[in-house]
Amino acid sequence: MIFEKIKSEGLSHLSYFIASEGEAAVIDPRRDIEKYIELAYEADATFKYVFETHRNEDYVIGSIEIAQEGNAEIYHGPGLDFQYGNTLEEGQEFRIGNLRITWLHTPGHTDESVSYVLYDLEAGEEPIMVFTGDALFIGDVGRTDMYGRDEDRRMASNLYDSLFNKILPLGDHVIVCPAHGSGSVCGGEISEREQSTIGIERIQNPALQITDKEKFIQRKINENHFMAPYFAKMEEYNLEGPPLLKNRPVPKPMSPKEFQKHMEKGTFCVDTRDPADFGGAHIAGSYNIILDGLPLFSGWILSYDKPIILIVKDYEDLEKGIRHLNRLGYDNIIGYLTGGIVSWYSHNFPTHSIPLLTARKLKQKIENNEEIFILDVRSEDEWQKGHIEGAYHIYIGKLKNHLDEIPKERIIATLCGNGTRASLAASLLRKEGFKNAMSVLGSMKAWKSGGYPIVK
Amino acid sequence: MIFEKIKSEGLSHLSYFIASEGEAAVIDPRRDIEKYIELAYEADATFKYVFETHRNEDYVIGSIEIAQEGNAEIYHGPGLDFQYGNTLEEGQEFRIGNLRITWLHTPGHTDESVSYVLYDLEAGEEPIMVFTGDALFIGDVGRTDMYGRDEDRRMASNLYDSLFNKILPLGDHVIVCPAHGSGSVCGGEISEREQSTIGIERIQNPALQITDKEKFIQRKINENHFMAPYFAKMEEYNLEGPPLLKNRPVPKPMSPKEFQKHMEKGTFCVDTRDPADFGGAHIAGSYNIILDGLPLFSGWILSYDKPIILIVKDYEDLEKGIRHLNRLGYDNIIGYLTGGIVSWYSHNFPTHSIPLLTARKLKQKIENNEEIFILDVRSEDEWQKGHIEGAYHIYIGKLKNHLDEIPKERIIATLCGNGTRASLAASLLRKEGFKNAMSVLGSMKAWKSGGYPIVK
Amino acid sequence: MIFEKIKSEGLSHLSYFIASEGEAAVIDPRRDIEKYIELAYEADATFKYVFETHRNEDYVIGSIEIAQEGNAEIYHGPGLDFQYGNTLEEGQEFRIGNLRITWLHTPGHTDESVSYVLYDLEAGEEPIMVFTGDALFIGDVGRTDMYGRDEDRRMASNLYDSLFNKILPLGDHVIVCPAHGSGSVCGGEISEREQSTIGIERIQNPALQITDKEKFIQRKINENHFMAPYFAKMEEYNLEGPPLLKNRPVPKPMSPKEFQKHMEKGTFCVDTRDPADFGGAHIAGSYNIILDGLPLFSGWILSYDKPIILIVKDYEDLEKGIRHLNRLGYDNIIGYLTGGIVSWYSHNFPTHSIPLLTARKLKQKIENNEEIFILDVRSEDEWQKGHIEGAYHIYIGKLKNHLDEIPKERIIATLCGNGTRASLAASLLRKEGFKNAMSVLGSMKAWKSGGYPIVK
Amino acid sequence: MIFEKIKSEGLSHLSYFIASEGEAAVIDPRRDIEKYIELAYEADATFKYVFETHRNEDYVIGSIEIAQEGNAEIYHGPGLDFQYGNTLEEGQEFRIGNLRITWLHTPGHTDESVSYVLYDLEAGEEPIMVFTGDALFIGDVGRTDMYGRDEDRRMASNLYDSLFNKILPLGDHVIVCPAHGSGSVCGGEISEREQSTIGIERIQNPALQITDKEKFIQRKINENHFMAPYFAKMEEYNLEGPPLLKNRPVPKPMSPKEFQKHMEKGTFCVDTRDPADFGGAHIAGSYNIILDGLPLFSGWILSYDKPIILIVKDYEDLEKGIRHLNRLGYDNIIGYLTGGIVSWYSHNFPTHSIPLLTARKLKQKIENNEEIFILDVRSEDEWQKGHIEGAYHIYIGKLKNHLDEIPKERIIATLCGNGTRASLAASLLRKEGFKNAMSVLGSMKAWKSGGYPIVK
Repeated sequence: MIFEKIKSEGLSHLSYFIASEGEAAVIDPRRDIEKYIELAYEADATFKYVFETHRNEDYVIGSIEIAQEGNAEIYHGPGLDFQYGNTLEEGQEFRIGNLRITWLHTPGHTDESVSYVLYDLEAGEEPIMVFTGDALFIGDVGRTDMYGRDEDRRMASNLYDSLFNKILPLGDHVIVCPAHGSGSVCGGEISEREQSTIGIERIQNPALQITDKEKFIQRKINENHFMAPYFAKMEEYNLEGPPLLKNRPVPKPMSPKEFQKHMEKGTFCVDTRDPADFGGAHIAGSYNIILDGLPLFSGWILSYDKPIILIVKDYEDLEKGIRHLNRLGYDNIIGYLTGGIVSWYSHNFPTHSIPLLTARKLKQKIENNEEIFILDVRSEDEWQKGHIEGAYHIYIGKLKNHLDEIPKERIIATLCGNGTRASLAASLLRKEGFKNAMSVLGSMKAWKSGGYPIVK
Repeated sequence: MIFEKIKSEGLSHLSYFIASEGEAAVIDPRRDIEKYIELAYEADATFKYVFETHRNEDYVIGSIEIAQEGNAEIYHGPGLDFQYGNTLEEGQEFRIGNLRITWLHTPGHTDESVSYVLYDLEAGEEPIMVFTGDALFIGDVGRTDMYGRDEDRRMASNLYDSLFNKILPLGDHVIVCPAHGSGSVCGGEISEREQSTIGIERIQNPALQITDKEKFIQRKINENHFMAPYFAKMEEYNLEGPPLLKNRPVPKPMSPKEFQKHMEKGTFCVDTRDPADFGGAHIAGSYNIILDGLPLFSGWILSYDKPIILIVKDYEDLEKGIRHLNRLGYDNIIGYLTGGIVSWYSHNFPTHSIPLLTARKLKQKIENNEEIFILDVRSEDEWQKGHIEGAYHIYIGKLKNHLDEIPKERIIATLCGNGTRASLAASLLRKEGFKNAMSVLGSMKAWKSGGYPIVK
Repeated sequence: MIFEKIKSEGLSHLSYFIASEGEAAVIDPRRDIEKYIELAYEADATFKYVFETHRNEDYVIGSIEIAQEGNAEIYHGPGLDFQYGNTLEEGQEFRIGNLRITWLHTPGHTDESVSYVLYDLEAGEEPIMVFTGDALFIGDVGRTDMYGRDEDRRMASNLYDSLFNKILPLGDHVIVCPAHGSGSVCGGEISEREQSTIGIERIQNPALQITDKEKFIQRKINENHFMAPYFAKMEEYNLEGPPLLKNRPVPKPMSPKEFQKHMEKGTFCVDTRDPADFGGAHIAGSYNIILDGLPLFSGWILSYDKPIILIVKDYEDLEKGIRHLNRLGYDNIIGYLTGGIVSWYSHNFPTHSIPLLTARKLKQKIENNEEIFILDVRSEDEWQKGHIEGAYHIYIGKLKNHLDEIPKERIIATLCGNGTRASLAASLLRKEGFKNAMSVLGSMKAWKSGGYPIVK
Repeated sequence: MIFEKIKSEGLSHLSYFIASEGEAAVIDPRRDIEKYIELAYEADATFKYVFETHRNEDYVIGSIEIAQEGNAEIYHGPGLDFQYGNTLEEGQEFRIGNLRITWLHTPGHTDESVSYVLYDLEAGEEPIMVFTGDALFIGDVGRTDMYGRDEDRRMASNLYDSLFNKILPLGDHVIVCPAHGSGSVCGGEISEREQSTIGIERIQNPALQITDKEKFIQRKINENHFMAPYFAKMEEYNLEGPPLLKNRPVPKPMSPKEFQKHMEKGTFCVDTRDPADFGGAHIAGSYNIILDGLPLFSGWILSYDKPIILIVKDYEDLEKGIRHLNRLGYDNIIGYLTGGIVSWYSHNFPTHSIPLLTARKLKQKIENNEEIFILDVRSEDEWQKGHIEGAYHIYIGKLKNHLDEIPKERIIATLCGNGTRASLAASLLRKEGFKNAMSVLGSMKAWKSGGYPIVK
């Protein structure tokens, strides 16, 4: 058995390649499938199946791209009218060489969510791995708010049953392979660690410690998750079958002059450099979303209908940036600044700087009673676990709609977990006329590292 | 001024990227244009012009692919009805930042052939480089047989005028940038060295030593070049504008079983490994064209109408192999053997071997008066410059149509310059039922290296 | 917690990098440590500890190389007088950021063997991973014959206790991280799959099904493992501290002429190309060890006192080949054939071919009652599990000393698992004068794939 | 003939690899020789000669590193007592396969300077290339001030003779291969273009337009070049034979805490990120030398006796940064900040920012009559060709010794050609207590691009 976990940075999406005796399958493939093709070649294998755990809402699924590479069959869970592939049938099972794959209906995150159970027949008859999709993560369980407030009790109840009555009974020894790792929008508390077993989760996963069903449901209902605007597009794509990547338009190199014209027209400009670099010099009106943050944060800002232009650190980052956006279905990237920001300022186009804060400077300002508006843009859950006294909370995903809560003339110190969402927030605020917005480098990570006080 | 020569291995095609002050141009781009885009990014430049020296007949031109990247204007020589781009006008000149570009009509290879002359205005008013297309190579001049026997006198006469009255007068100091290097089908005697000047060519280029026009014409008329079947397709593509690469079908991974089905159907199978590896084990009925030989030799064997399947040494070679074929317009690659030949024989599919010859073994056999048919598949010109006594000559490109000249039951030793065309010849013969065909490793290179006798 | 498994191909050696909060450790590092340094950089960490599970006998350990990169402390198990690093003390435990590491004395493979137990304090108090060294593998347990026949009962008894009384009690949920994967010389039956838990092993590992201690000991005593000659050198190095890599001599490029001189002097020549390529053309007297087989098979053939020269497929393979040999402590590589085998035969130096067999041809020959000596060079254990009727068995590691058992004039078909050891055997036999030795491509893998009969 | 120009970025050093018929030579190799070895492999060649044009003063020569790879002979010009290799003899010539190499004594830059003339015997008897070392560049000629004021007349006179009586007579058609390109410290006016011929230089090189010897000498005497402190070390190394690279100490990863300790001890800290990034956030007391500026600017700041610590953008840059410093003989790099600046501020270590200027902001400030001290740190020659009115000039290499000329409390705007030396100057000034020093992004390039006024 050949097994590879393929991690999509930024998205924190995990897909899995398995092969045995010349046959291969992919679980929850991403849209750019080169890596799977390479793995198949190395494994002397061709694609037999694509297994989807559910209609993902946070990225474009690559099932059809893989199906194009041969005769792979695509499988979905029951209860949703997918417009491509096949629906799993009760009791259906699959063979990949010496591997046996069965499935469990594990609704809760969505109704059609399933988990796939893997048996290595060469070694024995018992299950050894389970691909849990968004039902069970390492350190967390799936969110149950996807269908809205009216349905969350039903979903939480379903999830409880899926977890306690279907997944946990597989046995402590079974290796857990979820669809997401730490940082995903699909779970707030997912562990940074990426290895686990049912036993470890049974013992250590905070959600699984709540064995009382009603308490479990309450906990889930009380959670706060953000419903990103791009979810609807992903759901539409993943239900109907997304457009093929090869039909994307090609992003064009743009001179500073052309680029400026687009800036003036109001084209969304994303600068993918690090917060400190962005602070040093950037184009007024650009959004700062770091390269590996593109798959996570773009959906809060960008639109599917309007063109996007890009600034990257260097040529190597260009392809990565485009790929990251394509994974969210943003195919409307019309161009990029050739030569990057250096080309821009060397041709005497105007730049702005932001005098960035650090945790220790923020601390000093607070101690000196300086006028400063501390804006924490982390999620509700992160905020509730501890924040700086006196800070104001607006989630980054809602910032655009709550600008009136922020004092325009004050110095605004934006904060998040490590400074990257804070920099996006500062760039967004500056674009909206908050000229004194500046982000805190390292944000809460640096603040905690300094041992400074936190309140809940 | 930024200047880069981009060499397409195998094709021995040379294209040129030039940039100055944020503006870039490409002369004779190939179809896969990533490299030019990267160079433009590094040069902080956008594409302004694409200059074609002539309607190339040996590869698909990438002008339209580049034009897609922005607003680059494409220019062609006069006298041919190109269905895209612009025709150069008398006296027209161009600016790329501080560079000035003029053009000379230099017919002879084709009627619409032009040369571009480059001036670096930062340094002075004199020309410093000339892009000669297929008019002047390093060590050779362009072939004049493209329009057939009826026209070759006219073409040779034109070429003489272009060379002696237009290009050479630019001055000894001018750097020569031709469209092809050693190994190209567009010139038989092109030097392996890739650096030259008009002065060096004036003194050392054998063709330019013949200053008598009539003698020059005679020499050209007496040359023998092969008219590869794919030339017509390239000419059609390059006249009308070739299809965009992104519309190609995607080659699929094939298991040994699927691959065998295609072999049985008679699908063209190209094995891109080295002759010694092919000799060790290969699939009966496959053609052996080494990876870097694909852009040169494929056109003798493959068809544009029929599907192609590929065998490569390892995954890294796959993308290269596909790219090489695409450069000739072979977009009909439907698949490749996943896992390569190792996967094939490990699954117990049958292989063949060829007991390869070396120059020294061939020498021995000749000395021992063994029955052996020595088949030299080099070009007419190579053959005339010296060959093994008693060898029989059929050019590789004509081999398919002269099979009846070869004794089916004899041991056949195929020979070329270095052994790669010889291995293709042996594979072709074996496919046609000549079971004792075997190639000579190293061929004439090894033979000469051994100091063995040659006759003319 | 950041966790990375670093696999050394060929060796099937697994080392582990763990980091948390800026601190990093490596378990059983290999000698070339660039990968660990890169991982530390990406994890914002510096090295704090190196943990060795035991004095490895099958590769050179890189502990001192890492210690050189900072102030990392090296730890060994008790009972052996290591001349560098520290000996673990009873009850000693370690912290790497939020990780806690304890150790268990788990003798059996060697006396000083230990296992490290990892706790992720961020998630809970229970153990989640165990680094088992050569005590427990996936699908197998450690060999117990390292100290010879006199000690194997004691060692097997110790291993039983280590496994059943120390490792298994950690709990089914604990992830197993062994020091080797499939293909290692340290365990005959290690699974190709690289993911497991204590629970999976408890249920599926064949050795762990034998819960009766005496039966377990008998099974271990009855195992047959080869004691490779290089083990002694590895043990010496790993006990005393191996020489630093930077003090190696530099392998030099050699022309065919220089290379031939070394061949004539009897310098060990290793040709790292695939069996089919080697069969196609090779230099008489060279050994065929495929690139990824170097760390596994070299120790049967090469000597630490005599120089080695290399032939590789292409330049990219050169660095890999050298690295592979260095991992076994072979630092005495004095040169390589510049330009590879193509350069050799193009300069008219003599090559040999081998008319390779396939499983289906071998089958035919057997059915036709052709005179053929089938030599199976797999290990004793592989042989006993099933072989071709009439085959003769000599383990590849012992072949040199059993040449008199092989008929010199017969056609000899060498066989192994997949054809790579078979090709080494054929090259060795040919060097020793067995002119009709030839390997079977794909060997038993192809044979089984063909569904041909096997006897036990 | 195989010919490759190997450019060492930053140094603007050009070395040349030539090969023919299995023999290779390198002209003026750099210290890290992997690229030459790869080229030799691809060319099926071994090293026969290393040719040095002179004892270089701006980088460590790699001749001995190459000689170690085989039996290559090293050759130097006459008149200097090199402690390794051979001195060229009158009339001595060399063969590399079909290439013939002769040499000309071309003193002027240094006494032992020679030029090598290359003939391609396959093509003809005439010279086709000349390797001119530091005698003739593209667009400039060598500096003649290396031996000080007492000798510059003699050197300039020698250079005149070398150029006009030895090199130019080779003929207009000969290709010029100098030891340096644009940006080198060895010539102020070297063209960005890297292709030229003797004819082009004869017509366009400004220095070669001065055919009157006395005027030529005067011009050379009047030139202003900086004598970098590292020149002496390079000369010493290149005369005696530099230490082998493999004996360097290994730079160690350092945590922010360790790094800070070194900062406090006054260890030279070089931050290799771009000026805008450095401006955004950096460690107080660090020097900003961009990655590709290391080989050019480090020698103004760093010492051979004191340890160096590094900050790089990302892991990929680390190896490049170390290599760049090693090329100048800085082997004393003791460590680098693991995880880079992000790791630093995330652990709450203090950073500084610089509110960077742009050309347009500087223009505004001047127009608004703001108090600002404009410090131009370009070379004397650059300064004289045009600068901003009212600017003050101190060459970057002399800045440390002229701090008293700069007003400590004023806002200081540092300027250079493109902003990189300006950023180094600003970082140096800030380290010395000039708290209001800030660099102008894009500097004179942006200023000129804006069309702003310049005075001479």
